[in-house]
Amino acid sequence: MTRSLIDAFNPIFYPRTLAIIGASADATKFGNIILSAIQEIGYGGKIYPVNPDGGEINRLKGYKSLLEIPEPVDFAIITIPSSTIFQALEECRAKGVKGVEILTSGFKETGSPEGKRMEGEIARFSKQGMRILGPNCFGIYCPESGLTILPGQNFSRETGPVGFLSQSGGLCADLGQIAKGLGIRFSKMVSYGNGCDVAACDLLEYFFADEKTRIIAGYVEGLEDGPRFTRLLQENRGKKPVILWKAGLTATGGRAVQSHTGSMGGSEAVWKGAFQQAGVIQVQSAEELIDTIYSFLYLPPAAGPRVAVMGGGGAISVAASDSLERLGLSVPYFSPSVLQKLNASFPPVGNSLRNPVDLGNPMIPPFMLRKVMEAAGEDEGIDTLIVIQILFYILYQVRHRMGKDDRPLSQFSFQPELLRACQEVEARYGKPIILVMPDITTDGQMIDLEIEWRRERDIYQAAGFPVFRSLDRAARALAHVVRFYARD
Amino acid sequence: MTRSLIDAFNPIFYPRTLAIIGASADATKFGNIILSAIQEIGYGGKIYPVNPDGGEINRLKGYKSLLEIPEPVDFAIITIPSSTIFQALEECRAKGVKGVEILTSGFKETGSPEGKRMEGEIARFSKQGMRILGPNCFGIYCPESGLTILPGQNFSRETGPVGFLSQSGGLCADLGQIAKGLGIRFSKMVSYGNGCDVAACDLLEYFFADEKTRIIAGYVEGLEDGPRFTRLLQENRGKKPVILWKAGLTATGGRAVQSHTGSMGGSEAVWKGAFQQAGVIQVQSAEELIDTIYSFLYLPPAAGPRVAVMGGGGAISVAASDSLERLGLSVPYFSPSVLQKLNASFPPVGNSLRNPVDLGNPMIPPFMLRKVMEAAGEDEGIDTLIVIQILFYILYQVRHRMGKDDRPLSQFSFQPELLRACQEVEARYGKPIILVMPDITTDGQMIDLEIEWRRERDIYQAAGFPVFRSLDRAARALAHVVRFYARD
Repeated sequence: MTRSLIDAFNPIFYPRTLAIIGASADATKFGNIILSAIQEIGYGGKIYPVNPDGGEINRLKGYKSLLEIPEPVDFAIITIPSSTIFQALEECRAKGVKGVEILTSGFKETGSPEGKRMEGEIARFSKQGMRILGPNCFGIYCPESGLTILPGQNFSRETGPVGFLSQSGGLCADLGQIAKGLGIRFSKMVSYGNGCDVAACDLLEYFFADEKTRIIAGYVEGLEDGPRFTRLLQENRGKKPVILWKAGLTATGGRAVQSHTGSMGGSEAVWKGAFQQAGVIQVQSAEELIDTIYSFLYLPPAAGPRVAVMGGGGAISVAASDSLERLGLSVPYFSPSVLQKLNASFPPVGNSLRNPVDLGNPMIPPFMLRKVMEAAGEDEGIDTLIVIQILFYILYQVRHRMGKDDRPLSQFSFQPELLRACQEVEARYGKPIILVMPDITTDGQMIDLEIEWRRERDIYQAAGFPVFRSLDRAARALAHVVRFYARD
Repeated sequence: MTRSLIDAFNPIFYPRTLAIIGASADATKFGNIILSAIQEIGYGGKIYPVNPDGGEINRLKGYKSLLEIPEPVDFAIITIPSSTIFQALEECRAKGVKGVEILTSGFKETGSPEGKRMEGEIARFSKQGMRILGPNCFGIYCPESGLTILPGQNFSRETGPVGFLSQSGGLCADLGQIAKGLGIRFSKMVSYGNGCDVAACDLLEYFFADEKTRIIAGYVEGLEDGPRFTRLLQENRGKKPVILWKAGLTATGGRAVQSHTGSMGGSEAVWKGAFQQAGVIQVQSAEELIDTIYSFLYLPPAAGPRVAVMGGGGAISVAASDSLERLGLSVPYFSPSVLQKLNASFPPVGNSLRNPVDLGNPMIPPFMLRKVMEAAGEDEGIDTLIVIQILFYILYQVRHRMGKDDRPLSQFSFQPELLRACQEVEARYGKPIILVMPDITTDGQMIDLEIEWRRERDIYQAAGFPVFRSLDRAARALAHVVRFYARD
């Protein structure tokens, strides 16, 4: 079953030849945007534009019909009006195409009986040896083969462990952009829209079997087959994490789902229960979805619930304590022997040392943070470290560059030394370290701070340390990882 | 009572002369950072650095003692070791100083009996005609007089309607930075640390009376006088909004509070009840605090709970529906007559028109959004408009600039036309409009998108329209405004 699914899907994810039915030279049309995107990202196979006018499209020969193409076609992208869809599907069948994605909308999601009927007709083609994605979708992004979604022309070409499935194409488009800066890389990302044939269950089953996928995430509005979904997830228990955003759980949300992809929303309590039983990591917003994927990517199973929080500026540690406790994590006092060592290193004035550790001054030199990190590493009551690093020193760097401050830049650049401390403490004690670097500017004038922020974040990330913009987000993401590994 | 409080506080917020006791030429000392900050922001009165060595400090004559200063001193900033604090306070009393702020820490927050005793001693000076801020605080920011906190050298010099009080200096430092880009301007911002004399109640009473303050916000860890706090808030009911983040509500958080400012945390249920009764707008994170201040600044009392959400990309509208309903807002269907008009303007395929309105394509031309905005304006069942504007077109602008796209820039720059639509629809129907512009990049390479984001955000803001980075944040902030004006 799974083997045959892989065999069925591979020509779709890794097509040697590809037709775009509805390809267009008009830059404002989907038929041009998708063709341009696939050309620009550098798809490795052969592309055949199909358009009734023929001619040349984006420097490629256009074919008036799929049937004129001189070799077999593995995969077809269809972006033509819904009225002409059946003729195109007939040609695909005649040509022996293995899979199609239908970007066109105007089917079940319109709520009309006619739309529903037409979608049923489309689905019937899938019974004849051809898998169908969509309709009303943005398609497939597969960095390994160079396929991409609409409009993912600048997505990363690096392949990675995240398999993503989504009924929303817009979310795929956003995620592909955001992921670039976060070091999140995909095995495949699939926008399946109304999901008349391929939908959540097939994609889950594929991702469970796909060796290139280690973390599975998705956005679902409805499910085609509840019992199969539950069975698949039960079989996966303790294996790959599955992070799902099930939208449309409120009454209004459920209504919106129907006009988006024509799915049925379903009651919040039922879904929550089902997800919990199946070990699904449930999230409720795009931000939480992305943060959670990110944390599964960067945090090891050793990430435990007993957290040492350290930084300067006490409100942060008070807030940390509230946030972590609300999420089922804890911020326990250090053990007496560890605390004794800390007390010997730091004066009592201006420092709270018991955990959370507040070193008072937000511009904490790394050698001081390192002492606390080592203490937390040593303490057997601590599983995970959260290090809060305020970027005030960056402000100074920027000021220096602006000529407003003549102190040497190096006086404020803590990053190389702090990174070294993170690496050595992690290597020695084997406890995961999470960095929180709040960004404290939204000012058009101070864009330099954002540039510095991203630069430093990239360096920590490249060394394997996750960086969050707020403690709340770090805590929420960590809590998901902790619950997942504790459960199984 | 209130009159005398204003008389007591005005020399502190608007001092004609100012002494910095512990001023230093060493750029790494608080005594230099605060002096430099006040010089740089452009304080209008006279500054007297005080330091046992005298000499010249930051191009100003240093005085060996406060008593040597040749004229009366209104306000003194104290940043010297705790052991010498009493001598300084004695001199302040002898000199007739009206108010002091003590940045020095090492008192009640250490948890030691000695720290507590010393703090009691400090408080006693306040009984002798001198108001005291701190100890363990970052001080006062008052753009009108040019006072600023540590390290607020680049805070805005524009005055505004927000009065802010905080037991955390770090939060003040962050907020002052973030506020700049958001158009949030302050009447006064006060970091009062341990609050041995001036604390939440006095500051609330001052802000209630202060004509320059229209919106009050704050971060509190404990309260010096619960009954007075409740009485003050009851008297204010229906007048100025009070937005408070009470931290330390969990067990661990309460413990952290004690080592931060020596306050008592208190139980979550008790606080929630008290806040609700007193009409306080309770928030739980720095992000929520800032978003809520922002929304009270930009949204009128007319902002009601029945919301029209419009944009392109359906997951957004599904998520919108879930978010809004969870927050007690609603996304009602448009009335039949309004829907009929919309149906006449838009094809059914690819569009969901009933509300939330999903126009399918994330690159929606403003003339289309305007039609939906007008429909929502006209519909009597709608109070507030949320317009989601994805910045894909900015991506195209950037690509254009990078030479990767030869279509004209103007083809993708929707902002002037959309702004005009917002202004005209708001003027005609009197319904508030909120913009949501998700940022879809965190990539170091694509910093141009962030620059464009901020530039466009600033233009909408300058025209009075709030802009949020996510729909969840917009909805949460709107819900606070709606509840506040509905309650009173």
